[in-house]
Amino acid sequence: MTSLYAYQQLFSFTKNIFLKIGSSESNADIATKALLSADLRGVDSHGIARLSGYIRLWEAGRINANPDIRIVHETPSTAVMDADKGLGLVSAPAAMQVAIDKAKNVGTGWVSVKNSNHFGIAGHHAMMALGHDMIGIAMTNASALVAPTFSVERLLGTNPIAVAIPAGKEEPFVADFATTTAANGKLEILQRKNEGSPDGWVQTKDGLPSNDANELKKGGALLPLGGDKEHGSHKGYMLGSIVDIFSGVLSGANYGPWVPPFPAYVPMPENMPGEGIGHFFGAMRIDAFRPAEDFKMNMDKWIQRFGSAETTPGNPKVVIPGEPERAMEKERMENGIELHEAVLNDLNLLGKKFDLPFA
Amino acid sequence: MTSLYAYQQLFSFTKNIFLKIGSSESNADIATKALLSADLRGVDSHGIARLSGYIRLWEAGRINANPDIRIVHETPSTAVMDADKGLGLVSAPAAMQVAIDKAKNVGTGWVSVKNSNHFGIAGHHAMMALGHDMIGIAMTNASALVAPTFSVERLLGTNPIAVAIPAGKEEPFVADFATTTAANGKLEILQRKNEGSPDGWVQTKDGLPSNDANELKKGGALLPLGGDKEHGSHKGYMLGSIVDIFSGVLSGANYGPWVPPFPAYVPMPENMPGEGIGHFFGAMRIDAFRPAEDFKMNMDKWIQRFGSAETTPGNPKVVIPGEPERAMEKERMENGIELHEAVLNDLNLLGKKFDLPFA
Repeated sequence: MTSLYAYQQLFSFTKNIFLKIGSSESNADIATKALLSADLRGVDSHGIARLSGYIRLWEAGRINANPDIRIVHETPSTAVMDADKGLGLVSAPAAMQVAIDKAKNVGTGWVSVKNSNHFGIAGHHAMMALGHDMIGIAMTNASALVAPTFSVERLLGTNPIAVAIPAGKEEPFVADFATTTAANGKLEILQRKNEGSPDGWVQTKDGLPSNDANELKKGGALLPLGGDKEHGSHKGYMLGSIVDIFSGVLSGANYGPWVPPFPAYVPMPENMPGEGIGHFFGAMRIDAFRPAEDFKMNMDKWIQRFGSAETTPGNPKVVIPGEPERAMEKERMENGIELHEAVLNDLNLLGKKFDLPFA
Repeated sequence: MTSLYAYQQLFSFTKNIFLKIGSSESNADIATKALLSADLRGVDSHGIARLSGYIRLWEAGRINANPDIRIVHETPSTAVMDADKGLGLVSAPAAMQVAIDKAKNVGTGWVSVKNSNHFGIAGHHAMMALGHDMIGIAMTNASALVAPTFSVERLLGTNPIAVAIPAGKEEPFVADFATTTAANGKLEILQRKNEGSPDGWVQTKDGLPSNDANELKKGGALLPLGGDKEHGSHKGYMLGSIVDIFSGVLSGANYGPWVPPFPAYVPMPENMPGEGIGHFFGAMRIDAFRPAEDFKMNMDKWIQRFGSAETTPGNPKVVIPGEPERAMEKERMENGIELHEAVLNDLNLLGKKFDLPFA
């Protein structure tokens, strides 16, 4: 069972919850925009469905609602930011802004963040660069659910990468993807339908191929993009590793199997080598390479050529990265956002706890 | 039939060929090192097997043996380089050096190159950063052999990405991979053995799934990493697109279906929007983020943890990116490099043409 809720209603409720735990007006606003961008763009697993999870982390003392986010080291084109255990939903836009400011000065800016928490969807942060005629890049590590090629153990998160690239008359190119064959949210959909998962998505706790969408709950693992070695999973493993190293090792955050888990009830890993979880952001000014108008004209040509390519049987169009999410955002802004019953119950309980009736 | 040849013999022959077409002593040296690094590292498809192909491009007037490689635009952290139709084997190290120099000054350096040609293997260039305690990044677009998800048409090259990351006591992390399920070289191996290709590697000229390793010669296409939508091919398509845009659109090179083909006999695309093929390079100084010793100590920990993970049945070890290529390089430096009969014939003909007996 699902119901439709207006964006503004979800916005007010979410922002008020963040205010209740002590976030500043401005941080509550920034965090709410970041969180709900997932619901608008159709990444339901990363939006308001996670709100109660963030609050449980705050209750467990793992999220600081009033962080002193600060740059701890920098050069003209780089910075390391200490997120002071704040919401990643707040530290990520702050770090992206630093990257943008540095790009204004020296052409590009690159910021690695430590001591942070889950930052929502990567694409939201990367897209901050678009209005400045810059390419935006965002990535994060996450708690280990993914087994590298040949590994039984979970050592990597789903470690997403987002790249947002401005165009001219066309809408921007926005890629945002987990470095696994399928994100956990897709498995959850199959679980609800009681369906199996395709080859190459998960393995058992003994490292054997599986088509059980519940494998993760049984100690199994997600698989890197590619699925198995024959289908290039070592490439997905390399990608996820690069995200982990740029986000975790470069900043001084945790990495690999030591990244703190999102659910507050899961015990923290032992002997953690860093602080919190890590993110990595980049901004590149287009006109640090060539005149922005030339670039955009050519991006339009790129988008038009790919978007009008002859298609394989049964498929109407070659999709330009970002198109489906943009269409979803438009539709959900107009018609409202679907919430599953489980999410609704969760939000109602959360509302009661903070004396903020949800609906 | 194969035979073993000493690296030094291949080096002298290759360098002399580049000298014969008019390369300077220094450029011939740089190009030979770049080209043969592929043979040493086991990427046989990109090494000396391509030497006669480069020479045919020179004969066709598409490679300038004496290029005036120059920076046409720059900021403190960025540059666009015009390779003046030179060998990518020469312009790529030159661009990587500019990135490294900029990183010394402002923390990072990013160089997009236009008007270039095939640059060999990406990993060779990325690894230039390692000796400077920097992370090195290299990518390139290439002529279109890959059909994006839902496309019948070939619109992308195999567009590889390489990332080289220094460690401390451990050997560096070196990822170098095509953004397709399988590189063309792997199909060539299957063709020689007269074997079929696994699911998700290629499609027919009508966009249907295929297991025919010869599909490319019949007008079919390679598939992006993931193979099909259900297995995440849209992610491989996005990755390949990002490489194409950073390399081609950002520099003013060609992109998508307009990237010039490597074989000199294949006609050039019509209405090309840019100049030559494009590359993209990055260098990030480790201590622009955190003290290099701290970073390296943590990279050692990362490598030791992943490299000692419990493995799936039948697999001895979780491979650290760069390990197999390093082992291959050591082995081939000691014992020589295997050349297939077809490559040998090709090199003998090339030697005769330039009065440089190969063997």
